[in-house]
Amino acid sequence: MRSGNTLAGQFLAVMFPNNPTNFAHLDFDRPGRTGVPEVVWGLGKTPAQIASILQQIYDQSGLAMATRIAPDIAQEIQSKLAHCTYDALAEILLVGTPQVNHPGVVGVITAGTADQKVAQEVLVTLQYLGWRGQAFTDVGVAGIHRLLARWPEIQPCDVLIVVAGMEGALPSVVAGLSQVPVIGVPTSVGYGAQWQGLAPLLTMLNSCAPGVAVVNIDNGFGAAVLAGQILRVAARFAGGC
Amino acid sequence: MRSGNTLAGQFLAVMFPNNPTNFAHLDFDRPGRTGVPEVVWGLGKTPAQIASILQQIYDQSGLAMATRIAPDIAQEIQSKLAHCTYDALAEILLVGTPQVNHPGVVGVITAGTADQKVAQEVLVTLQYLGWRGQAFTDVGVAGIHRLLARWPEIQPCDVLIVVAGMEGALPSVVAGLSQVPVIGVPTSVGYGAQWQGLAPLLTMLNSCAPGVAVVNIDNGFGAAVLAGQILRVAARFAGGC
Amino acid sequence: MRSGNTLAGQFLAVMFPNNPTNFAHLDFDRPGRTGVPEVVWGLGKTPAQIASILQQIYDQSGLAMATRIAPDIAQEIQSKLAHCTYDALAEILLVGTPQVNHPGVVGVITAGTADQKVAQEVLVTLQYLGWRGQAFTDVGVAGIHRLLARWPEIQPCDVLIVVAGMEGALPSVVAGLSQVPVIGVPTSVGYGAQWQGLAPLLTMLNSCAPGVAVVNIDNGFGAAVLAGQILRVAARFAGGC
Amino acid sequence: MRSGNTLAGQFLAVMFPNNPTNFAHLDFDRPGRTGVPEVVWGLGKTPAQIASILQQIYDQSGLAMATRIAPDIAQEIQSKLAHCTYDALAEILLVGTPQVNHPGVVGVITAGTADQKVAQEVLVTLQYLGWRGQAFTDVGVAGIHRLLARWPEIQPCDVLIVVAGMEGALPSVVAGLSQVPVIGVPTSVGYGAQWQGLAPLLTMLNSCAPGVAVVNIDNGFGAAVLAGQILRVAARFAGGC
Amino acid sequence: MRSGNTLAGQFLAVMFPNNPTNFAHLDFDRPGRTGVPEVVWGLGKTPAQIASILQQIYDQSGLAMATRIAPDIAQEIQSKLAHCTYDALAEILLVGTPQVNHPGVVGVITAGTADQKVAQEVLVTLQYLGWRGQAFTDVGVAGIHRLLARWPEIQPCDVLIVVAGMEGALPSVVAGLSQVPVIGVPTSVGYGAQWQGLAPLLTMLNSCAPGVAVVNIDNGFGAAVLAGQILRVAARFAGGC
Amino acid sequence: MRSGNTLAGQFLAVMFPNNPTNFAHLDFDRPGRTGVPEVVWGLGKTPAQIASILQQIYDQSGLAMATRIAPDIAQEIQSKLAHCTYDALAEILLVGTPQVNHPGVVGVITAGTADQKVAQEVLVTLQYLGWRGQAFTDVGVAGIHRLLARWPEIQPCDVLIVVAGMEGALPSVVAGLSQVPVIGVPTSVGYGAQWQGLAPLLTMLNSCAPGVAVVNIDNGFGAAVLAGQILRVAARFAGGC
Amino acid sequence: MRSGNTLAGQFLAVMFPNNPTNFAHLDFDRPGRTGVPEVVWGLGKTPAQIASILQQIYDQSGLAMATRIAPDIAQEIQSKLAHCTYDALAEILLVGTPQVNHPGVVGVITAGTADQKVAQEVLVTLQYLGWRGQAFTDVGVAGIHRLLARWPEIQPCDVLIVVAGMEGALPSVVAGLSQVPVIGVPTSVGYGAQWQGLAPLLTMLNSCAPGVAVVNIDNGFGAAVLAGQILRVAARFAGGC
Amino acid sequence: MRSGNTLAGQFLAVMFPNNPTNFAHLDFDRPGRTGVPEVVWGLGKTPAQIASILQQIYDQSGLAMATRIAPDIAQEIQSKLAHCTYDALAEILLVGTPQVNHPGVVGVITAGTADQKVAQEVLVTLQYLGWRGQAFTDVGVAGIHRLLARWPEIQPCDVLIVVAGMEGALPSVVAGLSQVPVIGVPTSVGYGAQWQGLAPLLTMLNSCAPGVAVVNIDNGFGAAVLAGQILRVAARFAGGC
Repeated sequence: MRSGNTLAGQFLAVMFPNNPTNFAHLDFDRPGRTGVPEVVWGLGKTPAQIASILQQIYDQSGLAMATRIAPDIAQEIQSKLAHCTYDALAEILLVGTPQVNHPGVVGVITAGTADQKVAQEVLVTLQYLGWRGQAFTDVGVAGIHRLLARWPEIQPCDVLIVVAGMEGALPSVVAGLSQVPVIGVPTSVGYGAQWQGLAPLLTMLNSCAPGVAVVNIDNGFGAAVLAGQILRVAARFAGGC
Repeated sequence: MRSGNTLAGQFLAVMFPNNPTNFAHLDFDRPGRTGVPEVVWGLGKTPAQIASILQQIYDQSGLAMATRIAPDIAQEIQSKLAHCTYDALAEILLVGTPQVNHPGVVGVITAGTADQKVAQEVLVTLQYLGWRGQAFTDVGVAGIHRLLARWPEIQPCDVLIVVAGMEGALPSVVAGLSQVPVIGVPTSVGYGAQWQGLAPLLTMLNSCAPGVAVVNIDNGFGAAVLAGQILRVAARFAGGC
Repeated sequence: MRSGNTLAGQFLAVMFPNNPTNFAHLDFDRPGRTGVPEVVWGLGKTPAQIASILQQIYDQSGLAMATRIAPDIAQEIQSKLAHCTYDALAEILLVGTPQVNHPGVVGVITAGTADQKVAQEVLVTLQYLGWRGQAFTDVGVAGIHRLLARWPEIQPCDVLIVVAGMEGALPSVVAGLSQVPVIGVPTSVGYGAQWQGLAPLLTMLNSCAPGVAVVNIDNGFGAAVLAGQILRVAARFAGGC
Repeated sequence: MRSGNTLAGQFLAVMFPNNPTNFAHLDFDRPGRTGVPEVVWGLGKTPAQIASILQQIYDQSGLAMATRIAPDIAQEIQSKLAHCTYDALAEILLVGTPQVNHPGVVGVITAGTADQKVAQEVLVTLQYLGWRGQAFTDVGVAGIHRLLARWPEIQPCDVLIVVAGMEGALPSVVAGLSQVPVIGVPTSVGYGAQWQGLAPLLTMLNSCAPGVAVVNIDNGFGAAVLAGQILRVAARFAGGC
Repeated sequence: MRSGNTLAGQFLAVMFPNNPTNFAHLDFDRPGRTGVPEVVWGLGKTPAQIASILQQIYDQSGLAMATRIAPDIAQEIQSKLAHCTYDALAEILLVGTPQVNHPGVVGVITAGTADQKVAQEVLVTLQYLGWRGQAFTDVGVAGIHRLLARWPEIQPCDVLIVVAGMEGALPSVVAGLSQVPVIGVPTSVGYGAQWQGLAPLLTMLNSCAPGVAVVNIDNGFGAAVLAGQILRVAARFAGGC
Repeated sequence: MRSGNTLAGQFLAVMFPNNPTNFAHLDFDRPGRTGVPEVVWGLGKTPAQIASILQQIYDQSGLAMATRIAPDIAQEIQSKLAHCTYDALAEILLVGTPQVNHPGVVGVITAGTADQKVAQEVLVTLQYLGWRGQAFTDVGVAGIHRLLARWPEIQPCDVLIVVAGMEGALPSVVAGLSQVPVIGVPTSVGYGAQWQGLAPLLTMLNSCAPGVAVVNIDNGFGAAVLAGQILRVAARFAGGC
Repeated sequence: MRSGNTLAGQFLAVMFPNNPTNFAHLDFDRPGRTGVPEVVWGLGKTPAQIASILQQIYDQSGLAMATRIAPDIAQEIQSKLAHCTYDALAEILLVGTPQVNHPGVVGVITAGTADQKVAQEVLVTLQYLGWRGQAFTDVGVAGIHRLLARWPEIQPCDVLIVVAGMEGALPSVVAGLSQVPVIGVPTSVGYGAQWQGLAPLLTMLNSCAPGVAVVNIDNGFGAAVLAGQILRVAARFAGGC
Repeated sequence: MRSGNTLAGQFLAVMFPNNPTNFAHLDFDRPGRTGVPEVVWGLGKTPAQIASILQQIYDQSGLAMATRIAPDIAQEIQSKLAHCTYDALAEILLVGTPQVNHPGVVGVITAGTADQKVAQEVLVTLQYLGWRGQAFTDVGVAGIHRLLARWPEIQPCDVLIVVAGMEGALPSVVAGLSQVPVIGVPTSVGYGAQWQGLAPLLTMLNSCAPGVAVVNIDNGFGAAVLAGQILRVAARFAGGC
C-alpha cells in the first residue's frame, strides 16, 4: 500500500459503504455485503463484552443475537440489557424481535432427543435471520419407518437440515430421498468411539448419497446461515430479496 | 413386513414409479426422486462392469457418466462403447451429449494450479447435470489481490464452489465477501502435515465466515451435485424445474 | 411419496402394527420388530424427560429401563416414579421387575476390578431383556492361570462377553479357547496412551483369534443386546422364541 | 513351571488331544477346541510357505483354505498343489471341496458394487466352514427402497452380515429392522475422509440401533467365522453340532 | 567423562561463566548464552515453588516473570512477593519493571476477540524481554477489508505475530502481503472439529504463502521469544545488541 | 479342558504353589512367578475396595502399595488402615516399611520441575520393590550443560530412567552417552500439540540413539518395575536373587 | 464491489504496480510486495506447464526456480528450456544463475545423512534468493559431542535452520545454546511411529527451549524463505535492502 | 563457547578419546562410550554411501553392519565390498564375522509367521553385538497352549523379546509369567484398523502386566540393542564386560 493510502481509503469506502469513516471491530457492513448480520459468539468473552457488542449491533440494526451463552451469563446480561430474551435450550440471547418474513421453509430434522439442543440453535438462528423453520424430531434410522411416515410433511420443505449424533447416518438416507439441498450437522452426542462428533462428521462427509453439505460438529448456527444463503439465491431467482 | 408383502409392493410401486416391476441394482428412480441421475463411481469396478452400467443408464436416459476413470481404463471402455468421450483432466467418461439448459451460474474458484483436476470434476459434472459453470483459477490467498481483482466477475454467480488444497483458506475469505452459498472442496494437494487433505478439510469446517458447506476431500462431484440442488430450489421458487 | 400417502399409511400400518395411528417419538413397535424393547439413554436428557419416557414405556409393556443415569438424577426420578429401582454400579434405572425366562447363559468375563462397572451394565441389561448372565471377575491376562483355572466354569456358557480395559488382550485369549461367540467390550479404564479406550478397541478389532464381535467403548448395553439376539436365534432353532 | 514339566505335559495332552506329542506351529487342535479350523493368512508369506502349510492342513483334515492371495501367487501355488481352486474376487485358495451341511442361513448384504470383494470373502469362508450364505447386493441407504423391497427375502435369514464402505450406514438401518444378530463389516471402499475404512468403522461402532457386532475393516473372514459361531450355538440348542 | 572431571569443570566454567560454582536448577547462564532470560512456566508448580523461583531470578537480575498463573494462585504469590504485578488477561506475573529499550516493533495481529488472551501473553512477554509490541485486533479474514484497511499501520512493523483460532487462515493472507517475517500462533479458540487448536495449527503449517514460522498452540510466549531473537539479529546487523 | 479338570488342578497347583486351594482375585503367586508383588491401581476403585485389598496383601506379605490415590481418598483409607503412609507428591499409599536391600542403583533423571510427580512415583515404587533409586532433577535439554555437568554422578548408575514431558528429547541425549539401559517415561506435562503426552511418547519411540525402552505416558510405576527386572537379571548373573 | 470497479482498479494498480493491466495467474508483483519471488511447486503439474511457467518468470526477472521435480521430469524440461540446471539431491530446477549478494549467513544443520535431501532444498533455495548458507552435517543428538565440537563454527551464523527426522530432538538442543533465531524443519525420515514426520513435528512444536520456529514436514523451501525474511529485516535495520 | 575453544577441545578429547583429532560424521567413539557400535541405517542412502560407510567402520573395528537393505541394493554393495554377507529375511548386510562371546541368552518370541522378518532383524543384530539369541516361533495368544507348552524352554532365558503384529497381545501374557525383563516389538503385520502397527504399539504400552519395555514398530534392531544393554549390566554385576 506503499503510497496509495488515500486511494485505498476511497476504494474501501466504496466497497463498504456502511463503515465509511473507521473500520472498527464490528463489521457493520456484513449484512450489506453477505446478507448475514454480525452475530456474537459467546465463548471466551466476558458478560460485559457480550452486552456491549449486542448493544452496538442492536443500536445499528434493531436486532442482535449471541450464541453459546450459558444460563448464568445470560442472566447477568439480561439484567443489563433491555429487550433481551433467552432461549435456554439453544443457549441463545436475542435482543429485539425478529421478523420471519422471507419465503421458503427449512425443515430441521433430528435423529434423537439429545440432538434437540443443536436443532434449537438452528431454529432460533433461522428466526433471527428471517427464515421459517419447521422441526421434525426423533426420526433416527434405528426405526426407519418413523422417517418414512413423516416424509409427506418433510418433502415440501425447500432446504433440509439434518441434525444427528451417534453414527450420524440420517443425512445419507434423507439425501437419498430428497430433491432439495440437504445440510448435515454432526453432533457430539454419543460416547466412546464417537470421539466428540468425529464419527458422524466422517459419516456425513462420506455419504453415499451425493451432495450432502456438511458443517462443523454442533454448528447449528452455521447450518442455519447456509440454509438462509440458499433461500436468498432462490428468492433472487424469484425476483425477490 | 411379516404379512404385508402385497401391500408393500403396491406402496413401493407408488413411491418409485420408474422401477415398478423389479428393484434392480440400478436406481433408475433416482432422477425422479432426487433430481440427480445415477452416476458410476469407477474405483474398484472392472472396465467391463463400468461399460455395462454406463450402457444401461444411457439406454434408459440418453446420457451417462462415470467418474474416477484412469486413462487406460477409459481407453478400454471407449473401445466398447459408442458416443463415449473422455475428459482426461477430470478423469470422467461421458456417454452422450449433455445439455446445459438450466438457469443460474456456478462459479468454480481454484486456489492453485494443482487444484484444477478437482475443479474440472466439478465443471464436467455440472455440465452433465445441465447446470452452467464458470471457472476462476489461481486466486489463492497468498496473493489476495488476485481474488479482489476478479471479484466483479465472481460476484454475479449464484453459487460459488471453492476448490483449495494446501491450507484451504480461500473459502473463508470468499464466504466473508459473498451473498450466495459457498461450497468448499478441500483437496489432497500438498504434503507433510497436510495429511492428504485433512488440513484444508478442518480449515473449511472451522471457517470463521459462517455458512460454508463442506464436502469430502477431492469430492468435486459432490460439490457439483450440491450446487445443482441449490439451483433447483431456486428454479422452483422462480416457477421452473 | 408424492401421491401415495394413503397407501403409505396402509403399508406402514401393516409393517408396524403396534403404532397404527401415529408415529410418535417412542418406537413401541421395536420389540415386535427387532425383539429388543426401547431403552432410554440418559445422557443429555432432563430428569423430567427421562421419567416421562420411562412411564410411557412402562405403561405400554410393564417394564422400562434407562442407562447412564447419575446417582443424583436417579434419586430425582425415583421420587417421581413408582416401582423404580436403581443399580448404582451400572448406573441403570429399572421400572418394574424383569423376568429371566429365556434359555441359555451369557458368561460375562472381566479383566480387572475397574471394568466391573461396564460388566454390571451388561448384567442388568441381560436381566431386563430376560436372559441369564453369569459373572467371572478378575481373570485378566497378566495372570493367565486365573482364566485357565476358571475355564471349566466358563466353557459351558452359550455366549461370552469379555469386558477389558488397559490393553484389552483378554478377548483374543478367550476366543482362542472357546467354541461359542465371543463379544469384546473395550473399556476406557486406563490412562496415557490408552486414549479413553482406543487401545483395547484396536486390540479387539485386530484379534488374531478370528470371530471376535466388537462393540463401542464402554458399551455394555450393546453387548448385552447382541448376546440376546444370538440366543434368540438359538432359541428359534430349538423351536422356541 | 519350575518343576512341573511332566505334569504340564499330561495336562496339555488332556486339554489338546489332537496335538499330543509336539506343539508344532500348526494348531491342529483348533477345530476341536474352537470349532474353527486353522486358515492361512496369505500376507507376508512366500508361495512356498503357503503351499506347505496348506498341504499339511489338507493332509490332516481333507480341506484347507488361504485368504489374501494375489492372482500371481495363487497361480504359483496352484502349480504345486493338487485339488486347489482359486476364487479371484475373494482372493482365496481352497484345497479340497467343502461341504455345506450345517443348518441355518447367513444373509450377506452389500451396500455397493465395490464392496462385493469383501462380501465374497465372507461367502467363500462360510462355504469352507460348512455354513450356507445368501447374497443381497446393492441395497445401500442412498436408495432406501431397495433394502425395503428385498426385506421379505432378507428377513428369514438367521444371521445378517452387512458389508459397507463409504459412510457405512447400512448396518444401523438393518439392525433397526431385524430380529437376528447383525454383523457389520466396514470396508476401505471410499476416498478422502473415509481414511481407508475409519469412517464406516466408527459409524458401525456408534450405531444407534443397539447390538451391531463390528469386525475389522475389510475383515470378511472374521465376520464369517463369527456368524458360524452364532449358528453353532443355535445348532447346539437344537440338539445338533 | 571417565577421568576428565577436572577438565570438564574448567570447560563448563568457561562456557557458562555465570554458573561457575554449581549447576543448580535455575539456568542463570541462559540470558548470556541465548539472550533469553529464564521464565517460570506456572502449570504443575505450587505457589510456593513459583514464588521461590521468581525471587531467585529477581534477586539475580532485577526482573522476573511467570506465565500461566491462574488468578487465585497469582493472589497468593502476590501476598508473598514484593514488586509483583499481575496481568489478568495474559495470566502473567511480573516482578520488577521491565524496560522496553530495544529497537524495532513487533506487530501483534489478532483474528478475533477470543484470541486476545494469547495476544496479551505475546505483548507482556515482549515487554518483559525489552521489545516493543503493537496490537492490531479483530482483523480476521471473514471481513478481509478490515485487514486491508489497517495495512498502512501494519506494514511498517519489523516482525508480525498473527494470533488466530477457528480455522487460522489469517497468517496465510498476511504473509502474502508482507516483507517481514510472519509468526503464526494457532489458538485453541473454537469447538468441534477445531480439536483444541489442531485445525489452525495445520492451516499455518501448510500456508500457501511460504515462510510462515509456526509455534505451538496458544504459545504466545514462544512467539514473543522468537520475535525477539529475530530483532536481536537485526540489531546485531545494525551494530547494536 | 473337557474332561481333564482334575489334572488341570494338579498342573496349576504345581505352577502356582502359593495359590493351591483357590484362585481368588488377588494374584498372590505373582511375586514368586514374576518377582513383582501385586500392587493396587487406585483409579476406579472405592476407598473401601482399596483398603480391603491393601489389607489382604499386607496380611500375606507384610508390605502393600497402592498408586494413583488422590489426597482425600488417601486420608479416608489411612483412617481405616494401620501402618499406612502417604506420599503426596507420588500419590502413593504404602502399608508397612519397605527394605531397600538389593544391589544396584537406578538413576532417575527429570527434565523439568513439573515432571517430578512422575519421578516420585518411580522412586517410591523402586523403594517398595527393594531397589535403590537416585534422583537427578532439572537437567532438560534446553540447557544441555546441566546434564553434562552432572554426568560424572549419573554415569555410575546401573539403569537410567529418564522422565520428560514437553517434547521429551532427554532420553535420546542420555542414551547417546550411556553404557547402561535407558528407560524413557513420557509425561503429560505440556499443552497444545503435546496432546497429553503424545509428543514425548513419539519422540522416545523414535529415538535416534538406539535401545531406549519406552513405557506408557506418566507410567512411573511401570518404569520402576522394568528397572527392577533388569537389576534382578544382573543379580542373577552375579549369583544373587 | 457493487459499483466501485473503476476505483478498485485504481486502488489495486497502486498496491500492485507490477501487474497494472491484468491480474494473471503469475503473481509478478510478489517480489516487490513480499521480497520473495514466485517459485514453481512441481507436484501435480505437467512438464509442459512447469516449463512454461519457468520461462515466463525467467523472462520477467532473469531467474526462475521449480522445486519437487523428479529426475525424469527434470530431464524433459531441461530439453525444452535453456539455462536450466538440475540439483538432483534437492530435486530443484534452476533457470539462470543466482547471485548470492545479501549480507548474513544461514547455518543449515542436519541430524543425519538421510536428512540431507531436505537440507539441500534449503541450501539451493537460499542461493536462489541471494542468501548465503553454510552446511553442518551429521551432528544429531545421539552423539551430542559432535554438535558441541562444531559449535564454534555454528555460533557466528545469523540464523540457524535445523533439519531433523527420526525424533527431531536437535532443534531443542540448538535453541538452548543459541542467540539467534532457530528454525526447525521436521523430516519424514524414519519409520513406524514416526508417522511420516509427525513425531519430529510435535517434538519441535513442544520444544522446551522457547522460540523455535517450525515449518511443515520436509519443507526446506519454506525454512529458507523464512530465514531470508529474517535477514531482510536485519539488513533493513543496518540500512540496506 | 565464546572464548573457550582450546579448553573445549581438551575437554572433548578427554570425553571422546577415540576421536581426538576431528569429529567426523562417523561416531567411532560410540562403542567405547555406549557399548554399541555404529550401525548403518540403509533407508534413504545410496548404495555408494552405504558401501563407503561400511568400509570405514570395518576398517576401524573389523566388523560392520547395515540394516533395511533391499535385495537389489544388497547385491550392488556386495559386488563392491569384500567379506560381505546378506541375510535376506532380515534385510541386513554384515561385513566380517561376528563373535558371539558374551554370557546370557535372549529369547526371541514371535506370535505369527509374518513376524519372523522382524525377529530375524533382532537375531542378526544380537549376533553382530556378540549376544546369543534363541528363537521361539508361532506361539501367539490365539492358541495359548503353544506358549505354555514351550514355557520350560523359554523360562531360562535372561531377557525376552516378544515380536507381535495384529493386536500384539503376546507381551502382556509373557510378562505375566516371566521373572526377566520383557521387551515388546510391535510389528506392522496386519491390515485395516491395525494402522501399520498402531494397534500392537498401544497394546504393549498399556500392558496390564507391568514393566514391558516397548520399542518402535518393526524396530527389531532397537530391541536387540536394548537386550544387549541389559545383559551388559548383568555382566558388569558378575564382574565381566
